[in-house]
Amino acid sequence: MSIKVDFNCDMGESFGMYKLGYDEEIIKYITSANIACGFHAGDPMWMSKTVNMAEEYNVGIGAQPSYPDLMGFGRRDLAVTPSEAINDLTYQIGALIAFTKKKKLQHVKPHGAMYNKAVADEQLARAICQAVFNVDPDMIIVALAGSKWIGIAQEMGLLVAREAFADRAVRSDGTLVPRSEPGSVIHDVNMVVERSVKMITQNRVIAITGEELTIHADSICLHGDTPGALEMAKAVKSGLENAGVEIKTMTDVVSR
Amino acid sequence: MSIKVDFNCDMGESFGMYKLGYDEEIIKYITSANIACGFHAGDPMWMSKTVNMAEEYNVGIGAQPSYPDLMGFGRRDLAVTPSEAINDLTYQIGALIAFTKKKKLQHVKPHGAMYNKAVADEQLARAICQAVFNVDPDMIIVALAGSKWIGIAQEMGLLVAREAFADRAVRSDGTLVPRSEPGSVIHDVNMVVERSVKMITQNRVIAITGEELTIHADSICLHGDTPGALEMAKAVKSGLENAGVEIKTMTDVVSR
Amino acid sequence: MSIKVDFNCDMGESFGMYKLGYDEEIIKYITSANIACGFHAGDPMWMSKTVNMAEEYNVGIGAQPSYPDLMGFGRRDLAVTPSEAINDLTYQIGALIAFTKKKKLQHVKPHGAMYNKAVADEQLARAICQAVFNVDPDMIIVALAGSKWIGIAQEMGLLVAREAFADRAVRSDGTLVPRSEPGSVIHDVNMVVERSVKMITQNRVIAITGEELTIHADSICLHGDTPGALEMAKAVKSGLENAGVEIKTMTDVVSR
Amino acid sequence: MSIKVDFNCDMGESFGMYKLGYDEEIIKYITSANIACGFHAGDPMWMSKTVNMAEEYNVGIGAQPSYPDLMGFGRRDLAVTPSEAINDLTYQIGALIAFTKKKKLQHVKPHGAMYNKAVADEQLARAICQAVFNVDPDMIIVALAGSKWIGIAQEMGLLVAREAFADRAVRSDGTLVPRSEPGSVIHDVNMVVERSVKMITQNRVIAITGEELTIHADSICLHGDTPGALEMAKAVKSGLENAGVEIKTMTDVVSR
Repeated sequence: MSIKVDFNCDMGESFGMYKLGYDEEIIKYITSANIACGFHAGDPMWMSKTVNMAEEYNVGIGAQPSYPDLMGFGRRDLAVTPSEAINDLTYQIGALIAFTKKKKLQHVKPHGAMYNKAVADEQLARAICQAVFNVDPDMIIVALAGSKWIGIAQEMGLLVAREAFADRAVRSDGTLVPRSEPGSVIHDVNMVVERSVKMITQNRVIAITGEELTIHADSICLHGDTPGALEMAKAVKSGLENAGVEIKTMTDVVSR
Repeated sequence: MSIKVDFNCDMGESFGMYKLGYDEEIIKYITSANIACGFHAGDPMWMSKTVNMAEEYNVGIGAQPSYPDLMGFGRRDLAVTPSEAINDLTYQIGALIAFTKKKKLQHVKPHGAMYNKAVADEQLARAICQAVFNVDPDMIIVALAGSKWIGIAQEMGLLVAREAFADRAVRSDGTLVPRSEPGSVIHDVNMVVERSVKMITQNRVIAITGEELTIHADSICLHGDTPGALEMAKAVKSGLENAGVEIKTMTDVVSR
Repeated sequence: MSIKVDFNCDMGESFGMYKLGYDEEIIKYITSANIACGFHAGDPMWMSKTVNMAEEYNVGIGAQPSYPDLMGFGRRDLAVTPSEAINDLTYQIGALIAFTKKKKLQHVKPHGAMYNKAVADEQLARAICQAVFNVDPDMIIVALAGSKWIGIAQEMGLLVAREAFADRAVRSDGTLVPRSEPGSVIHDVNMVVERSVKMITQNRVIAITGEELTIHADSICLHGDTPGALEMAKAVKSGLENAGVEIKTMTDVVSR
Repeated sequence: MSIKVDFNCDMGESFGMYKLGYDEEIIKYITSANIACGFHAGDPMWMSKTVNMAEEYNVGIGAQPSYPDLMGFGRRDLAVTPSEAINDLTYQIGALIAFTKKKKLQHVKPHGAMYNKAVADEQLARAICQAVFNVDPDMIIVALAGSKWIGIAQEMGLLVAREAFADRAVRSDGTLVPRSEPGSVIHDVNMVVERSVKMITQNRVIAITGEELTIHADSICLHGDTPGALEMAKAVKSGLENAGVEIKTMTDVVSR
């Protein structure tokens, strides 16, 4: 049986007059789109447009809900209660579902500060999973490979796509090196490709501290908001395919 | 066959710390709830709470989408394009659906300035109907009795609940006397009851100009944001029941 | 020389259709009003109305800026950078100034989560003081009695009103017992009065742990959002006046 | 005495993560900056940055207040009352003032739909002028050359900068051809230059209908949100200077 991996990318992060990202290009290289739902980015017009585009390209559609923080692009931690997290996510996921032809989403991946906090905060991770479960327990939840969040989702009966970041350095505990620290983002295309192939075919990754860690990932996160991101996507795709990996949509990679 | 009518009321119009309306009381007297979706009032916490309450009381759940105008409570006209109206409504309706147990709404009734404009503006009426159709063509649309909007919805194949206002004066063309004009709101309980009974049992209403008009209404709108509204609701309910009218949920009144 | 103290109260926390607080009543018993600036509550219409009322009653006008969080009423911590805090406050303070006749504010008191965080977080306290300094160094900053924040403000050359809470229990370090903990709010009017008199005339307060602490306060915070608050305000006022304390506006209490 | 004209340009229309316009370049060619105040674009961080930049380049600073409509970029008409207009503008103007070193603005120019409506709606024009007058009667108000708005401002004792648009076609009544109509925007650089020189040196402009109209303009509006805008700005500047016109800040052009 061949090795399979999904490519996911954040999309629909424009707002009103403001255009962000190269969605029209990057959509051709990914298999799953995480679409902003209006709380950190996106608005009804852009959500409609982005969902239509993802359906046209046959890309798996997911919600990327966030803390309510348009001014901070969802990148600032906000002290929400579990109940607020559940309801904020229910709202955003439902809003996106309504734009899809099938009234179904493939997955949910929280955005920015909420995602990062869920990696370390079990209460928030549980609230996120609860929202996904409440709205539609068939949706896949995307969570950082190696995090406790994965077990929380699985206990609830949810399907999980374990996520790796092609261009982000990891600490010895498998968590991401924060963007504020040096070396957190890897810009060299060859290194990113090599790293991706190793993660997916050998289940190994070198931490920033030099140790080799085990990693099991179902989906690789690509970025779509820089022109260079497109070249990166193409290179990672070729690199993985040349190593015999199949790039498939999340639904094909994750299954019960 | 007995005469049936639905009682609808705006609900869930609180926001954050701000409590508005007597939802916990009025819910006992109505059959359909129009729940705010966050654009003019309401937020994910209140939407959750209000949906739960409506489900507990077995009241038909509907969305009350609005122009995006929290500061103006959706009561100020905003020059949206048809495409913006469709997407703004899709977003709000979807958000509310996600909070329901059945992932289904009974109906949609636009709020405030959007409702009023749709009565006179065919392009907006069509956009509203299109949004309802796109999200779930089984939802009933609530539209002013006697307006062109009704025909637009029916042509699209939608079920329509023709709405009358128990306590609002009408002009000779059947439209509401605007709130800014004297005599627009009828405060006398007996008059409101008498008027309601006449509208539903005889299909007749006296315009502010004195003429008697024909009216066909499937649902009567009650208000829930004043203490007096509760007494009004009780009196209208008794009055209609004494006149042999059955108060039933919208789904039971409107059918293909 | 007689002992003087200022009474401050949060005001203008209504928003659009939503009315909050008993401003029209409580204004008669206070000497300084902290007016919401639109980020957690308040909007241009309410700011205008509230400033006019404060000017009519000759009450000292201050800004109550907040994190941008209308949904959470500014009570949820948000991880802003110092630069974001400075600019968010500059914006809100400036907006309020424009509504005043003299284009001058008496004071600034941050709201909710921002205030609480500034008590413990020197970086945020410094950013708040910097914003006050940048907009108008003659404005008084209101800060918790006994906190490091006071020294930070004084080093910058700002006037500080050291604040005590009549109805809030304190811990042995002088900080407030969080609202989430039992006993945090004192509801007994007599106890609140006795406590206030002791704080102002003897500079002593009993902590929730039983110890007696020293406290130096220039201003007592009253609450205006419950009907009981009005009785409390009257009782604290009488109690202090009977003990020979003069209730004066902040400008009269704090001076270089 | 030589002929003088001011160059104004909309600035600071970025928001959070979203960058809009070429402010850093266009600032070098203009004499007055209209800075967004957070209602249609702009936020406290961008306002601070943009004000600092304008001060560095010694460019006259003005507020560009708007209807509250971030999603629609202030380009959709909103049915505000005069009182709402006055308070919304007071808020925004005050907010911007606080970021300036001198706590003074040179001018106010309403944005988008509000500007366009004020040209035809005397009640709104009056409300706008009232807000300017209330906050600081020394501020100049920018209004469309030839509109009734100018007289309304002058009656109130305000200084007015009569504005012409270098690249916009005008109708026979002197108002702008709406963007939705063909020929509304003139893209040919030579034509824009020729037109500008004719407007400023001869006080004449050719309407889209072919007639020659009289126009008296104190300020020419340039656009800063397309790369082409920069070339246009340079060309109009050279053209006018070669024709002997001095490009001066609004304060130097408009005086009592």
